[in-house]
Amino acid sequence: MSEPEKKRLQVEIFGQTYKMVGSESSGHMRLVASMVDDKMRELHSQNASLDTATLAVLAAVNGFHDYLKLKHQVEQMESELKRLKG
Amino acid sequence: MSEPEKKRLQVEIFGQTYKMVGSESSGHMRLVASMVDDKMRELHSQNASLDTATLAVLAAVNGFHDYLKLKHQVEQMESELKRLKG
Repeated sequence: MSEPEKKRLQVEIFGQTYKMVGSESSGHMRLVASMVDDKMRELHSQNASLDTATLAVLAAVNGFHDYLKLKHQVEQMESELKRLKG
Repeated sequence: MSEPEKKRLQVEIFGQTYKMVGSESSGHMRLVASMVDDKMRELHSQNASLDTATLAVLAAVNGFHDYLKLKHQVEQMESELKRLKG
């Protein structure tokens, strides 16, 4: 079996260029980068005194918070699907 | 209507203390902080030359990537539930 092709691309997040490598589509990788960029800019606009590292940590906190909420939703939907399929 | 009670707590992420404020349970907030801390430590162990800001940006990229994958799964499950419920 061949390895899935790894895509490489450069993205800009909060003014810094990062090289991303992944097996996801370029569109998915660009979307993820733009979500992090948007969140850091939103947090910066709310508190301009926060440094880049703090903005990025808070963006990460937001991302994992949204992930956990969605994970809870998936678990509820899995239970409902199981019930419906009997 | 009263506002939902805001909880305040201090968490440590990659050696720095952050004050978190939110309406979620303290357990949820601590879990989110530990996920960010774990991811930054994992990335640091893979590349010790990365600075804190870069580690946090990459942790955020990971969090939003996982979020998007789960969002896609939710959409598929929603379609299936709709189909099953007729």
